[in-house]
Amino acid sequence: MAADAERIEETLSSGRPRVLVVGAGFGGLACARKLNRKPVEVLLVDERNYHLFTPLLYQVATALLNPSDIAYPLRRVFRGSPNVRVMQARVKSVDFKRKVVQVSPGSELRYDYLVLATGSANSYFGNQRLAEHSIGLKVLEEATRLRNHVLSCLERAEMETDDEVRQSLLTFLVAGGGPTGVEYAGALGELIQLVARRDFHSIAPSDVRIVLVEGRDRLLGMFPERLGRYAERVLRKRGIDVRTNTLVNAADDWSATLSDGSTIPTRTIVWSAGVSPEKPSGTEALAESRSKRIQVDDRLRIEGVRDAYAIGDVAAAKTDGDELPMLSPPAMQEGRYVARAILRDVQRAATPPEPFRYFDKGTMATIGRNAGIALVRGGLQFTGFFGWVTWIVVHVYYLIGFRNRLLALVAWGWNYLRFDRPIRIVLESQTDPLVEGIDDPAPPSQKARSRGGSG
Amino acid sequence: MAADAERIEETLSSGRPRVLVVGAGFGGLACARKLNRKPVEVLLVDERNYHLFTPLLYQVATALLNPSDIAYPLRRVFRGSPNVRVMQARVKSVDFKRKVVQVSPGSELRYDYLVLATGSANSYFGNQRLAEHSIGLKVLEEATRLRNHVLSCLERAEMETDDEVRQSLLTFLVAGGGPTGVEYAGALGELIQLVARRDFHSIAPSDVRIVLVEGRDRLLGMFPERLGRYAERVLRKRGIDVRTNTLVNAADDWSATLSDGSTIPTRTIVWSAGVSPEKPSGTEALAESRSKRIQVDDRLRIEGVRDAYAIGDVAAAKTDGDELPMLSPPAMQEGRYVARAILRDVQRAATPPEPFRYFDKGTMATIGRNAGIALVRGGLQFTGFFGWVTWIVVHVYYLIGFRNRLLALVAWGWNYLRFDRPIRIVLESQTDPLVEGIDDPAPPSQKARSRGGSG
Repeated sequence: MAADAERIEETLSSGRPRVLVVGAGFGGLACARKLNRKPVEVLLVDERNYHLFTPLLYQVATALLNPSDIAYPLRRVFRGSPNVRVMQARVKSVDFKRKVVQVSPGSELRYDYLVLATGSANSYFGNQRLAEHSIGLKVLEEATRLRNHVLSCLERAEMETDDEVRQSLLTFLVAGGGPTGVEYAGALGELIQLVARRDFHSIAPSDVRIVLVEGRDRLLGMFPERLGRYAERVLRKRGIDVRTNTLVNAADDWSATLSDGSTIPTRTIVWSAGVSPEKPSGTEALAESRSKRIQVDDRLRIEGVRDAYAIGDVAAAKTDGDELPMLSPPAMQEGRYVARAILRDVQRAATPPEPFRYFDKGTMATIGRNAGIALVRGGLQFTGFFGWVTWIVVHVYYLIGFRNRLLALVAWGWNYLRFDRPIRIVLESQTDPLVEGIDDPAPPSQKARSRGGSG
Repeated sequence: MAADAERIEETLSSGRPRVLVVGAGFGGLACARKLNRKPVEVLLVDERNYHLFTPLLYQVATALLNPSDIAYPLRRVFRGSPNVRVMQARVKSVDFKRKVVQVSPGSELRYDYLVLATGSANSYFGNQRLAEHSIGLKVLEEATRLRNHVLSCLERAEMETDDEVRQSLLTFLVAGGGPTGVEYAGALGELIQLVARRDFHSIAPSDVRIVLVEGRDRLLGMFPERLGRYAERVLRKRGIDVRTNTLVNAADDWSATLSDGSTIPTRTIVWSAGVSPEKPSGTEALAESRSKRIQVDDRLRIEGVRDAYAIGDVAAAKTDGDELPMLSPPAMQEGRYVARAILRDVQRAATPPEPFRYFDKGTMATIGRNAGIALVRGGLQFTGFFGWVTWIVVHVYYLIGFRNRLLALVAWGWNYLRFDRPIRIVLESQTDPLVEGIDDPAPPSQKARSRGGSG
């Protein structure tokens, strides 16, 4: 199997310069698409065989969309492409000197130009116990796991007579008040209020508690203060316990401890409070920013090495001196910029490209039914129904593929008109340690009690 | 948590006789639905929180339908029911003397009437190695695993240069020529011919081999011979290597050995060649039929115990002396019959119910695009396009829920018009040992070779 690289060499033996794009997220995909039908060979490598539309992950996690609605097969995107090849493999390391990348399965892939677009992963700031007791919301498997987990908690609570156990099953803690945390908390509130109380005879809406914890003094720090306050108000009105200036410090099987000293009895901690750049081995010697992203110059070239670019969450790209946020719009613009820069270089353009500048069209988030917020370039701010409709239009526009757009619209229409969350099936619950953990004999307080009791 | 049973006792404390239905497949669900709004308390227990429409599992396995399209939440079915409660739990054992069932999570559930509808599971006739190297097609997790596995084989083959390795990745062996095996083989052929060759640059349709193996002398033994021969002809015409009078005897990581002595190099064995009844512990002393199903009398009562019925795949129900096949129509009719019998007993009817008789409306199967077979009561036989349309109409009718019917119709229309299999994403590939196995260094023959080479 060491021959994999040869096969790739064979299929890409045009003699044109090879661009190796590592990662098919928003940045890598935009770069590869921009290089389609251009005089370069492109090899796009990703661990998964699909591009994931991460802004809608929380809707998969709340039983509204199917996983395949927000995942688009990469081979489909480049089906008609004469010069872009897709490869499903894990990148193990980069050797910038020899200009090769080690992948598995397979071996070495050489490159003329490297575009590193490996994104970011959940970060628990080194707290291993917190990591074990949390479910993140970065990849598709986490979204389906979270869906399974929440539904299983409701199933268990339906039968539970012990108040303490029941409370921990019906308390859901969301860590992080950025867009992911806010959107998930809002959608979870709807899932439980609209659907679960009709399905579960012994669970009253008031039995369920959703706590959203944010370390800063308000939600949605990247938005103007007014919009963050609006989101907080809407969530509170919908029964969500919002706590700002608060961190999750510790967690165990039965509870989470917050920085204000309080203990929340819970079996569910959803982690959206931190991510860190995902850097393959071989990048240790590179300069990094305070947020640990790889330092790039104003043309997005990795500092200190040759013919290598970094884009998206993994790269510390700047505009007007500020590091850009880890969001899809900067990643996509960086991907297209790098594609153009590489083409200029290949075509030996007389002048270097203009420095990269991020053009901020706006940012948005949805808090639930009829409630969205949107910040448009120029400072225009929308909230409420109009913000929500803007959110829908923009997200449908950016979804890849007619079928996925149609299905998302149909699902949203169905949800809106029928107050339904249709994908309420627990698939593969057996393999989830947190769900399995629910079979645990008793919480610590009960163990203490039973020690003094009949033993 | 030992208090679960109390909670159930509490919610069902009407004083009416309690019917405990174990298993929410076709039989158990039909029984519980028939008892809806009747003067009994019904408790429906299943390991899963959904009813699975198993006849369409092969379409999930071939990337045409989403898992949620064929799985319907049980709580949704009985949302408005005043007397049917749903419980997600595993049944551990039955105590027919004390009239209780042990479940996990939870403890004991008492019953006045028991309906055992636990279905069947894959059976490998005790061949453990065959079991480890096969993927069954009985539950939803197997269907998604098979989808992931086949797509991963194509991904790996796309990059592979070694002919032997490539051949094993591109050979798919289907064991069992009943409806499941025939339908899956036909749909897999379409998936690969219609879609994969457009997505994978280095895989020619002639590189892929699908082998369907059946122990008897023809396919679809339950159908008249003409229909079985038709299915064989259609599959052969579509490039599938059909081998009758042949069994799979053994399997390892790289190949399967057939009873005719030939070895098929393959990484994929799909098992539909045998199932056996799934009996909870406590049933060991019961009389069983030659197929190991629980013996029931002509009123479907389990022989030798009181107030306990068995239906569906787990029960050896007969009509005109013949044991009924393990299919959904007999299970559903048995479920409804038992519901009526229990109600007569509860209402102290003067006469015992008529013995159970299966009314055979017909059987059908689909082999792929424009090709189905249907056998209708009275001996009417359809093949080809008309058989295919009949299949679609009947399957949409039996799917539960307007949404699922609509989505299946839309998916089939999409597939028919666009020649597309849209759900081509590999979800959770990391946890699949058979997919992981693909990373293996080399097949045995290569290991032998490298031993003589550079080491």
